[in-house]
Amino acid sequence: MDRKVINNLRSLSLDMINDAQSGHPGICLGAAPIMYTLFANHLNFNKVDGNWLNRDRFILSAGHGSALLYSTLLLSGYPIEISDLKKYRQINSKLQGHPELSRELGIEMTTGPLGEGFATSIGFAIAEEYLRSILGSTIVNHFTYVLVSDGDLMEGISYEAMSLAGSLGLGKLIVLYDSNSTCLDGNINKTFKENVLKRFEASGWHTEQVVDGENILLINKAIENAKSILNKPSIIEIKTIIGKGSIFEGSNKTHGKPLDEKDYLLLKKKLGYENTFYHISKDSTIYFREKQEKRIEPIYNEWVKNYNEIYQSNENVKKILNYLENNTYELNLKKVKIHLEEGESEELRVSNGKLMNLLSDLLPLTMSVSSDLFTSTKTYFENGGDFSEVNRKGKNIYAGVRENLMGAIINGLALNNIRAFGSTFLTFSDYMKPSQRLAALMNLSSTFIFTHDSIMIGEDGSTHQPIEQLSMLRSIPNMITFRPADIKEVVGSWDFIINNKKPVNIVLAKDKIKNLVGTKIEGVEKGAYIVKEPFRISAIILASGSEVSTAIDISDELLNKGYGIRVISVPSLELFDMQDEEYKKELIPLGSKVIVIEASNDKSWYEYIYNKKYLLNIKDFGTSGKKVDVLKHFEFDFDSLIKKIEQLIK
Amino acid sequence: MDRKVINNLRSLSLDMINDAQSGHPGICLGAAPIMYTLFANHLNFNKVDGNWLNRDRFILSAGHGSALLYSTLLLSGYPIEISDLKKYRQINSKLQGHPELSRELGIEMTTGPLGEGFATSIGFAIAEEYLRSILGSTIVNHFTYVLVSDGDLMEGISYEAMSLAGSLGLGKLIVLYDSNSTCLDGNINKTFKENVLKRFEASGWHTEQVVDGENILLINKAIENAKSILNKPSIIEIKTIIGKGSIFEGSNKTHGKPLDEKDYLLLKKKLGYENTFYHISKDSTIYFREKQEKRIEPIYNEWVKNYNEIYQSNENVKKILNYLENNTYELNLKKVKIHLEEGESEELRVSNGKLMNLLSDLLPLTMSVSSDLFTSTKTYFENGGDFSEVNRKGKNIYAGVRENLMGAIINGLALNNIRAFGSTFLTFSDYMKPSQRLAALMNLSSTFIFTHDSIMIGEDGSTHQPIEQLSMLRSIPNMITFRPADIKEVVGSWDFIINNKKPVNIVLAKDKIKNLVGTKIEGVEKGAYIVKEPFRISAIILASGSEVSTAIDISDELLNKGYGIRVISVPSLELFDMQDEEYKKELIPLGSKVIVIEASNDKSWYEYIYNKKYLLNIKDFGTSGKKVDVLKHFEFDFDSLIKKIEQLIK
Repeated sequence: MDRKVINNLRSLSLDMINDAQSGHPGICLGAAPIMYTLFANHLNFNKVDGNWLNRDRFILSAGHGSALLYSTLLLSGYPIEISDLKKYRQINSKLQGHPELSRELGIEMTTGPLGEGFATSIGFAIAEEYLRSILGSTIVNHFTYVLVSDGDLMEGISYEAMSLAGSLGLGKLIVLYDSNSTCLDGNINKTFKENVLKRFEASGWHTEQVVDGENILLINKAIENAKSILNKPSIIEIKTIIGKGSIFEGSNKTHGKPLDEKDYLLLKKKLGYENTFYHISKDSTIYFREKQEKRIEPIYNEWVKNYNEIYQSNENVKKILNYLENNTYELNLKKVKIHLEEGESEELRVSNGKLMNLLSDLLPLTMSVSSDLFTSTKTYFENGGDFSEVNRKGKNIYAGVRENLMGAIINGLALNNIRAFGSTFLTFSDYMKPSQRLAALMNLSSTFIFTHDSIMIGEDGSTHQPIEQLSMLRSIPNMITFRPADIKEVVGSWDFIINNKKPVNIVLAKDKIKNLVGTKIEGVEKGAYIVKEPFRISAIILASGSEVSTAIDISDELLNKGYGIRVISVPSLELFDMQDEEYKKELIPLGSKVIVIEASNDKSWYEYIYNKKYLLNIKDFGTSGKKVDVLKHFEFDFDSLIKKIEQLIK
Repeated sequence: MDRKVINNLRSLSLDMINDAQSGHPGICLGAAPIMYTLFANHLNFNKVDGNWLNRDRFILSAGHGSALLYSTLLLSGYPIEISDLKKYRQINSKLQGHPELSRELGIEMTTGPLGEGFATSIGFAIAEEYLRSILGSTIVNHFTYVLVSDGDLMEGISYEAMSLAGSLGLGKLIVLYDSNSTCLDGNINKTFKENVLKRFEASGWHTEQVVDGENILLINKAIENAKSILNKPSIIEIKTIIGKGSIFEGSNKTHGKPLDEKDYLLLKKKLGYENTFYHISKDSTIYFREKQEKRIEPIYNEWVKNYNEIYQSNENVKKILNYLENNTYELNLKKVKIHLEEGESEELRVSNGKLMNLLSDLLPLTMSVSSDLFTSTKTYFENGGDFSEVNRKGKNIYAGVRENLMGAIINGLALNNIRAFGSTFLTFSDYMKPSQRLAALMNLSSTFIFTHDSIMIGEDGSTHQPIEQLSMLRSIPNMITFRPADIKEVVGSWDFIINNKKPVNIVLAKDKIKNLVGTKIEGVEKGAYIVKEPFRISAIILASGSEVSTAIDISDELLNKGYGIRVISVPSLELFDMQDEEYKKELIPLGSKVIVIEASNDKSWYEYIYNKKYLLNIKDFGTSGKKVDVLKHFEFDFDSLIKKIEQLIK
């Protein structure tokens, strides 16, 4: 009967892929026994309550196996119908080409870009440890399972994940490795000959090997062993055959495109589904679901009982649970008292760090992560403690020099309703782009903090001076980027971050920045606003970040020469873009002479200027030197800028 | 006397960092004995001929140790003066904050972003194996050494490098691991507890450990052992103490900023350089250089003799050597015969693959790399063979699912005058950004080929449909991005690639594309040109890639309605930007009504339009579906576009 379910999974997957004429049959055929064993015997979930706090998590890191996942979820009783399968990969389908986050359907996250699922699972496992430590193990105590492919394990981010998970001893993390020795371009021996289990072992993991991926008893036993090891993460290498049953089984020909018609029909017959399409075997499905229900129901009921008891009796836990349920904070930062008088200066990263510490003390369920730059980015939670093997309550996570993993961890925490803030230098956002894109795709509350935001960092030189990164970050759809001008705008940015569940970048100068006259906390939410207004307007300067202060000084200077400059601070181009035309025209009346100052090469500013002469920016890579010298070198110092601007408005 | 050189290196490094009040003393103090041993006893170089073909390569992957590198190069006799050291990290200095490519100075590549140096060394080692196999080992037979830090080894890209180097058995690669157990945020045990040597071993490496980094005999012996192992890459873990000699030795306090004055002076005294600044010890420097010269001179002279002999006698080798020396190809593709008639269609990736194969057969010293997508990107060199442990002449490199490493390998090959072309899907450029930035920083001939370039890939869905990637690629300074409209423009793009040594992206549709009437191979070099001209111009459409064909069709259709549309194909925004005003105005006369069509969200097009309504593009993430359905969904199908355009020009 087990076999019947497995073949039903295979048959459904094939039908979907064949109908769509698009998809990846190889993994669906090869990994079906793994999925079956996991869902039948181990994974604790609730198909009608996808948000059950204590469900085991399952992530299909090899997202191209989506058809297999959808089949498994359907047979398990999630709200997926045959009619949905028939729309697989088609327009407006809830079953997208690669799995997309939907707790209702049992999809814990969006996957597809290889390695990302595995890396994000580290965030899941950290969340579990942390929540268990603060809520108690009657409320949180579950496993996180991930299915990975050879391709997943080749991506650098997956090694980063392996390394950190081992270092942190994340014992409730279990990786199921669909080891079929085949990638898109053929046998992996062309490029991937390492002893995978040995290197996981070297990184502090418990390892298991299943030599025959068709043998569900062996798979089952290995999962049981892995579950019993609680001080180390586990990986189970399961030797499977890609495209199992196809004429081309074992070959990359089954990897990335549908089987040909003949092969498909022949295999359907072999599987026991000749001439039946989208057929669900009744008896085996009942068998499958009974196995699940028999196991899960008592656990779930017991959990609900315990939960209610604790919820009623423990005020502290109740408060945290409420946050966890809603993941909404109501915290109006607009009235916050700022410790800096107007005119006083402080390094903006320091101001930001102080505010983050304030927030951390006020808000439960926040964590701070850094890719080995806490010391420089100043985002360490002073009262938070370090998350480690021995301190699961720690709120600071040392991600190591692993930016992409850090991004994935932040996403994983966000997916478990913990607000996570990750910091590195702006240049190194380059390493994190894949994770940031996923944050945006899933619309997570992930916050990315980037300090050292321009050529003004000086001596570290071109490799460390960001130029094009603002452009990159602002180009990610569904993401908001803030580049605050001063401490008030830092507060305004965090007001947005806390009160909106959106993926956000906050980009900060390393340097001392004055608390400016004219800036406003509440100015930030519209993306742009007037910070300095002359009696008569000769021109308008738009600026962001540290350049706002320069723009104000320029405006003062030019007033002496008879030019009135309106200065508009633009902490977020994206938010400004969302405002109505009226507001935009109020700020920038039609026909105005507009000049932009920003130490980046972002061209989206072209929207607001007449021609590119009016964009005063940095077009080339940076260079080493003291800040003042570097600015002069790029003719971006005060004197050069004012000269250029005078020319432009004359 | 050895000790004296080592302490001189330390003293000079400290002086530089102290003067600049910026830099990383920790690694300079800790790793000086490693650098000394390598340069004194092993590294074969020629300080007056930095381009010596058979020099050993040395890459400082831990680029923050720049002061130590510069000191070592100065003491070794490279053209670096005390006056240069005094300008360390200052404006217009040849000694930048992090090392920047300069063969004259003995700097093989720009480093700083961690992991990149190590990953690029894989490209160096492949180049060595390949060149040795085709030129013979009397001409090419050298080692590639890399110094890596803990931070380097945490970055995902370094695991990718480890994995592939082991799989390919790159025996002439030797990694010196400065293992000081300290990263910027403190002891690595917070985040990096793996057994590094064991995991390298698991990946097919030879490993050595030196328990005392002050013991140069042990370091020396380990390097000798590593050199004797020729079928596996080697890593030598050398246990050092960060900030050796400082009051804070062993602590991250010595990592990223200058020692404080007292500590600095005290340590100078300990090192034997009390009250002397930028002092070069005469006797020990003579000793150091004599060791080098005694070893290297006979090798170099012998090599020159052999080289000349072979150069004179072997025509085939001579030809390759000439290419290798100049790295310039003169190949005019403008007259190439295209196999597709105008009006005929072919998948653009297929057209591109055919052309690449033609080039590969015509040009020596070209290699093709793919991150497990040869099958899809069609960039495999059919006559090239696979580069592998047993076939060092192979011209196709299977990089595995490791895009960032692929980028680094391409850079490494380019740095050794092999033209390398790497391919993946456009979305996955996300993973490769750090390596691409370095290609641009170093101005290498690296070519990045991206297929599957828009939402039109259809069924794979949002994770695989690029939206913002064009914006990201075009934002990288000093890089040229092509998005050809058809086969002729593909040829034009390659004409640029072959005849210019520039970092280039070429972005290709997956779909069948007609060889268009109106496009021109030679149109590409100016970045934009007219492909369709009406009798009277009502509006101008700018488009790139597959949208050019659509624009031409729209222009035909609207002509029937009485509107004359000039269609301008823009294969490269960057190249168009470089043209003079006259040419730009010829194409886009002042006051023209300009509309842009591009299936991306790149906002740099704003430069050419009146307001954003005139930019017809894709602003949000994609979705699964058949191409036609996806286009409709985004109102980017022919009918929707023509309706919008009619509205705009009415």
